[in-house]
Amino acid sequence: MNTPTTGGSAAQLSPTELAHMIDHTILASSATEEQVRLLCAQAREHGFASVCANPVWVSVLAEELAGSEAVPCVVIGFPLGASAPEVKAFETQTAVSAGAREVDMVINIAHALSGNRQALVEDIRGVVRAAHDGGAIVKVIIETSELNDEQKVLACEAAIEAGADFVKTSTGFSSAGATVEDIALMRRTVGADMGVKASGGIRTREQALAMIDAGATRIGASQGIAIIGAADAVEGAY
Amino acid sequence: MNTPTTGGSAAQLSPTELAHMIDHTILASSATEEQVRLLCAQAREHGFASVCANPVWVSVLAEELAGSEAVPCVVIGFPLGASAPEVKAFETQTAVSAGAREVDMVINIAHALSGNRQALVEDIRGVVRAAHDGGAIVKVIIETSELNDEQKVLACEAAIEAGADFVKTSTGFSSAGATVEDIALMRRTVGADMGVKASGGIRTREQALAMIDAGATRIGASQGIAIIGAADAVEGAY
Repeated sequence: MNTPTTGGSAAQLSPTELAHMIDHTILASSATEEQVRLLCAQAREHGFASVCANPVWVSVLAEELAGSEAVPCVVIGFPLGASAPEVKAFETQTAVSAGAREVDMVINIAHALSGNRQALVEDIRGVVRAAHDGGAIVKVIIETSELNDEQKVLACEAAIEAGADFVKTSTGFSSAGATVEDIALMRRTVGADMGVKASGGIRTREQALAMIDAGATRIGASQGIAIIGAADAVEGAY
Repeated sequence: MNTPTTGGSAAQLSPTELAHMIDHTILASSATEEQVRLLCAQAREHGFASVCANPVWVSVLAEELAGSEAVPCVVIGFPLGASAPEVKAFETQTAVSAGAREVDMVINIAHALSGNRQALVEDIRGVVRAAHDGGAIVKVIIETSELNDEQKVLACEAAIEAGADFVKTSTGFSSAGATVEDIALMRRTVGADMGVKASGGIRTREQALAMIDAGATRIGASQGIAIIGAADAVEGAY
């Protein structure tokens, strides 16, 4: 589910192929049920990879996306990553039991800053076990804007060691989002077989393609409709 | 523990009296253990009400504040309030077991926006039960910047019905923080016996006193040292 196909050829992607790589995302605390249901309808129509929302919406996602290609994705320990490891694991178990097929978890950033590799791994591993036990995959948000390159590499290595399925740049709630340089660094670090998700500030097809050419296999965006160039794109709708 | 003494007389408060009303706060995801320990030392020295930090720091808080007047305070479902109710309750139980004496939880903002009073109450009640069972108190963050006045009142009423100890304005992670008008509205809504905490953007003694005169009985701030006018205040230290 996460085999990369990169190498400067992203410009060839059709709108449908690009949609298959996008997590259609709504994470504002002020999101309404109507908005979440609208995103699910759009995901069904356009074939987005998932709809990514806060855990309170997992039942809505599961209901709306049943039978479609798009899967329910929820965030864990989001956006600060500063919940206790057992709470992140429990939150994952709860979400997966309710229908989440993908979970995007935030690392304990303090552990990355202090270089505590083992603590990083254990925190991620609790989420990975809970998710994999329920048949879901895990994306590990390393929040690149808070880390230097050495710390980004450490966080990626911890995600590999913990058995995660993807590394992901950003929550979208910090000072900055995805950059081409960070995607390239993460791809070099995790090798060819792991997923890499670019998220935070991606609003155009051009930005998305640049991330894919740099090694991203998934794009997180609230502007997925605009990115694929669909007619129902509304500027600033979410 | 939360009897208000207001009425325009806050200007009479000594630095020590004011310190007793302040939750000395560090909630950035990039906070380091050294910074958290420094805040604890300052809380012991100046007599702050608590040190308020993310759940990953609860053991550090418990260790550093043992035997002092300042108590460990952690945030729950923070800052989006969009975790499942059972996850908020479990996070509370975990934190209280590890030594938290106060928990500041974020409401499900979508329920306030949609006027779903019963769902608001149930979400808060799960946290209140877990906290009170462990001898801790609960402050309910209603995130005023996301709500209109009717929704703010509804959230305060839900906090009362759920048996919470305080209502609190803001996470500090939204578009705006505490205002004198919101504190006055919340005080009018909850009556004289419940705590009201002003938080978000309070950086000076003058701002803190205005909140207290409007009805606040607790101030959440990262700049507590500056607010009480202590000699070791450092601009922008946290």
